[in-house]
Amino acid sequence: MALVPDNTLITDTPEQGRELAIILARKTVAAIQTDADTRQTLRPGYATNADSLTMATHVVATVAAANDYWRNPASSAES
Amino acid sequence: MALVPDNTLITDTPEQGRELAIILARKTVAAIQTDADTRQTLRPGYATNADSLTMATHVVATVAAANDYWRNPASSAES
Amino acid sequence: MALVPDNTLITDTPEQGRELAIILARKTVAAIQTDADTRQTLRPGYATNADSLTMATHVVATVAAANDYWRNPASSAES
Amino acid sequence: MALVPDNTLITDTPEQGRELAIILARKTVAAIQTDADTRQTLRPGYATNADSLTMATHVVATVAAANDYWRNPASSAES
Amino acid sequence: MALVPDNTLITDTPEQGRELAIILARKTVAAIQTDADTRQTLRPGYATNADSLTMATHVVATVAAANDYWRNPASSAES
Amino acid sequence: MALVPDNTLITDTPEQGRELAIILARKTVAAIQTDADTRQTLRPGYATNADSLTMATHVVATVAAANDYWRNPASSAES
Repeated sequence: MALVPDNTLITDTPEQGRELAIILARKTVAAIQTDADTRQTLRPGYATNADSLTMATHVVATVAAANDYWRNPASSAES
Repeated sequence: MALVPDNTLITDTPEQGRELAIILARKTVAAIQTDADTRQTLRPGYATNADSLTMATHVVATVAAANDYWRNPASSAES
Repeated sequence: MALVPDNTLITDTPEQGRELAIILARKTVAAIQTDADTRQTLRPGYATNADSLTMATHVVATVAAANDYWRNPASSAES
Repeated sequence: MALVPDNTLITDTPEQGRELAIILARKTVAAIQTDADTRQTLRPGYATNADSLTMATHVVATVAAANDYWRNPASSAES
Repeated sequence: MALVPDNTLITDTPEQGRELAIILARKTVAAIQTDADTRQTLRPGYATNADSLTMATHVVATVAAANDYWRNPASSAES
Repeated sequence: MALVPDNTLITDTPEQGRELAIILARKTVAAIQTDADTRQTLRPGYATNADSLTMATHVVATVAAANDYWRNPASSAES
């Protein structure tokens, strides 16, 4: 399983950057719990619990922050 | 659904930046729990629980931090 | 309701910066739970629970971090 | 109550920087729960609970991170 | 036990960077709970609990962020 | 008690940097709960609870991030 699709953290737009953050968070979950059936069983439970959703959203926010760190130097290198 | 309204993280003022952080957090929740009715059902519960509110506020703070990271290089590029 | 008082994150002193972080955290809570009476009802509960206080303090710390990120470039621009 | 002792985040040594982070975290708790007696009542409970201690330590770590962000530009300005 | 494999945080690709973040998180757990049998006993429990998985993923995201911080200056130094 | 061994956050290698992050986290816990016997009593409980271990690991990750922030300017100043 690839943890980073296309092996790049560079995206053309903020929209794609946010989508990538969600994907990276899901890939990390999948790397910890490798059984897809187990993940499917767990999903309805946390997706209908407000605090679980908040925690999952926090993870995506942290991933997005890290992603932004990485992207900035590359951006300035292009200018 | 667009994760980033207008596909930009640049805002004219700190006030708009904070509003954007709240929107981005909500968009991420919506990307994880795509059923709007379920989100509406969950909302009264967490909105009347102090710790749930604190957790949600923490997510917004983290999103705002990431947003600021992104914005700074652009600002300095303009100067 | 304004999320950012005076629409600026720039403060003259570290003391004012910390005060602003507390205000920003409270404004975000208020943007999520817009009913002031509900917030007042919740406050005694979390303010007498050690873990709730710790969580709230963490939010302020994260807000302060984001605030500092924003302020630094402006400071260096002035020098 | 002053949130920032001496109104500065600059410290001479890493040791003093860590001490300051602990003080800042405590000042924030005190700004949220202003009653000292209540804080004293809560302290034995969380100080003997491992997860509460871990959460409190996390807050200090985040404050220290924010403090470091702030200090770096000043340091480079002096050099 | 080495906390950092090959004693470097520099990776050639984002994919390897993410893999390293997962390894670093596991090494830290192992440094706190040094008994491998205990870790094996705990693993099935948290790997089938959605919130535990979310928390573990958050740790990896934070580690990845720190890793990125470290890598950036080195990258720019090479250019 | 010294919060920072040798009063420096600079380490020669990433391995030593990670070790320092674990030490700093433990020193902070010890600064909050100063009674060593109490800490020893708490340790078996959290060290055999997966979520407690995850939380403790998150603290170390945050400390490591702050440590990296601090080290980078110094590194670039040497070059």
